[in-house]
Amino acid sequence: MQKIMNNPQDAVEELLQGYVKCNSKYIIRTKNPRVFIQKEKIKKHKVGVVSGGESGHFPAFIGYLKPGILDAVAVGEIFKAPAAEVFLDAFRAADKGEGVICIQGNYQLDNENVQKAIELARNEGIRVERVIANDDVASMKNEDRSNSRGLAGEVLLWKLAGSASELGYSLDEIVLVCKKAIDNIKSIGVGVSACTIPEVGVPNFDVVEGTMEFGIGHHGDPGLVTYKLRKAKEIAELMLQEIMKNGDYGKDTEVLVLLSGLGSTTQMELYILFNNIYDILLEKNIKIYRSYVGNYFTSLDMGGASVTLLKLDEQLKEIIMSQEKCDLLY
Amino acid sequence: MQKIMNNPQDAVEELLQGYVKCNSKYIIRTKNPRVFIQKEKIKKHKVGVVSGGESGHFPAFIGYLKPGILDAVAVGEIFKAPAAEVFLDAFRAADKGEGVICIQGNYQLDNENVQKAIELARNEGIRVERVIANDDVASMKNEDRSNSRGLAGEVLLWKLAGSASELGYSLDEIVLVCKKAIDNIKSIGVGVSACTIPEVGVPNFDVVEGTMEFGIGHHGDPGLVTYKLRKAKEIAELMLQEIMKNGDYGKDTEVLVLLSGLGSTTQMELYILFNNIYDILLEKNIKIYRSYVGNYFTSLDMGGASVTLLKLDEQLKEIIMSQEKCDLLY
Repeated sequence: MQKIMNNPQDAVEELLQGYVKCNSKYIIRTKNPRVFIQKEKIKKHKVGVVSGGESGHFPAFIGYLKPGILDAVAVGEIFKAPAAEVFLDAFRAADKGEGVICIQGNYQLDNENVQKAIELARNEGIRVERVIANDDVASMKNEDRSNSRGLAGEVLLWKLAGSASELGYSLDEIVLVCKKAIDNIKSIGVGVSACTIPEVGVPNFDVVEGTMEFGIGHHGDPGLVTYKLRKAKEIAELMLQEIMKNGDYGKDTEVLVLLSGLGSTTQMELYILFNNIYDILLEKNIKIYRSYVGNYFTSLDMGGASVTLLKLDEQLKEIIMSQEKCDLLY
Repeated sequence: MQKIMNNPQDAVEELLQGYVKCNSKYIIRTKNPRVFIQKEKIKKHKVGVVSGGESGHFPAFIGYLKPGILDAVAVGEIFKAPAAEVFLDAFRAADKGEGVICIQGNYQLDNENVQKAIELARNEGIRVERVIANDDVASMKNEDRSNSRGLAGEVLLWKLAGSASELGYSLDEIVLVCKKAIDNIKSIGVGVSACTIPEVGVPNFDVVEGTMEFGIGHHGDPGLVTYKLRKAKEIAELMLQEIMKNGDYGKDTEVLVLLSGLGSTTQMELYILFNNIYDILLEKNIKIYRSYVGNYFTSLDMGGASVTLLKLDEQLKEIIMSQEKCDLLY
C-alpha cells in the first residue's frame, strides 16, 4: 500500500485529530470522541442539523461542519455506521430547543441506529426528525427507492437543511424541504480503480485494467455492470442516461450538478467529465443553475466519479442562494 | 491508464473548458485561449497580479483566479512553460495603469519567457515586476537559491500579492512583500507513486513498491534520494528536518503551514501527515498561525505531498488576515 500512513488501525483517529488541529477555529471535539460540532452553532437558537455515518468518505462528514451546513456529526469507523449512542450524543449537542433534523444515507445499520437514537432522544425531550438520502439510481427500481443507496446527493440535503435552518425555518418546514429535495435528487457512480481499506491493505475488489464499474456504491463494492473503460464523453452519456430514465427532465428543467471524485480522482479528470456533462445537458435544453466539481463524497482512494442532479424549483433556489457565499467546503 | 479522459492530447483544453463552464460567474477566457482573467478584476484600479506556468499542477494556475489572489493567468501545456506571448497577453489583461506583478516558479524556460514578455510589455508602456518562487529546499545549497525549484510556496506568494493589491499597496510595495515572503518560504516534497502524462500513457518514472522519493519536484521527475517507505510520523520528521536545516526556526517563530497533496493523494493521508507535522512543530515551540491542507499544487496524479512553511512577521500576518474570508480555493 503506497500511502502516507502510520498504523492503519489508527487512520480514522489520526485523520480526525489532524482535521480538528487544522480547523480548531471552527470545530470542537465533544466529550464523545466520535461527535464533533461547529463552534458557531453554540451561539444560535435554530434547528440543529446533524449527519453521520461511516468513515472513508472524507470530507464527509466532519468536513461539512460549518455555518450554513452541518452543526454536529456522528463518525463511525471505516465503512461501519456509528452506534446509536454516538448519534444520540450528536443530537444532544445540536439541540437548542428547536429540535434536530438528522440526514443519513440509506444503509441498514445507519437506519437502525438512527431510529434507536431518535427514540432515546425523544425520552429526553429532544425532538429529532430524519430524512434518508436514497439518491442512487443504480439501486432504484422504477420509482421504488426503498433499497436505493445514498450517494453524494446527501451533501445537497445538508446544504439545504443548513441554509433553511439559518433562515429560521422550523423543523417541520426543513423536513418538507429535504423530502421534496431528495425526491428530486438522483445520482450514479462509476469506478475506474478500487479502494483499499487501510487495515486490510489490499483492494477489496478488482477493477480489471481496461474496464470500469458502472453503478458503484461508496463502500468499496463493485458496480452493478462491468463495462469496457469508455471515453469521458461516453461515460457522461451513460451516467446521464441512467439518471434521466428515472425521472422527468423536460426542457424547462433547471438543475444543480454535483460532480464528486471518489478519492484519488484527479481534478483534471473531473473537469474533463464535467465539460462533457455540461454539453450534454445543454443539448437537452436543461439549464444548469449551479455546479460543484470536487472530491465531495469519496470512497477512500477509489478512482472514478459520481454525478448528482438536483431538479430545482423556486424555493430550493432561494434557499441555496441565501447561503451563496457559504461554499460547500472550507 | 485507468482514467476518465477523452483523447489524451485534448486533456488540457478540456480541463480548461470544463473549469470555465463551472466557474463562468468568476472567470473569463480572453481572446488568447491560454490567458484567463477573473471578472472582478475588470472593475478595479489596482496592481495586477499575474502568474502562469505549465499545466499538470491543477488547481494551479487557473483555480486561483479569484478576488484577493490572481487576476490573470498564462497557461502552458503539460509540463511546458507558456510562450512569452502568452505571458505578455496576461500582463496586458491584468494592467489597469498601476503596473503588474508576475509571480513564477524558478524554471529555465519560465524565466526566459517571462523575461522576454516583460521587455515586450515595457515597450508598450506596461510596467511589470517579477518575483521568482524558489522554495524547494531539496535543490537549495546552503543559502543559495539560484537553482532552487519552485514548489507549492508559490501559492502563498499569490495570496500575499493578491491581498496586498486589494489593500491598495503599490507595485513596489508588493514586490518588497513578496521578496521578503519568498526568503521565508521553504518547501519539500515526498512522492509515494509516480505520475502519468496523459499523452504518454505510462508513468515517467517508477516508485518501487515499498520505497518513497524524497525531495521530488513537480514535473514527474524522481526525487533526490530514494528511501524505504516510512510511516507518516517519520516522513513528517524527515521533511521538517530538511526544511529547518535551511533556516532559523527559533522558539518564537510563527509559521503558516501549507500541506499540499500531489494529485491522487487522499485527504485522509494529508490530515494524518498534518497531525504529525502539527505535533512536531508544537514540540519545537513553533507556533502555527494558520494551516491549509488540500490539493493546492499538484503533479498530475502523483501520490505524496509537499510541505511548505512560511515564517511570518506582523506585516505578513496583517496582509493575510485582511483577506481572511477569501479562502485559497473556491
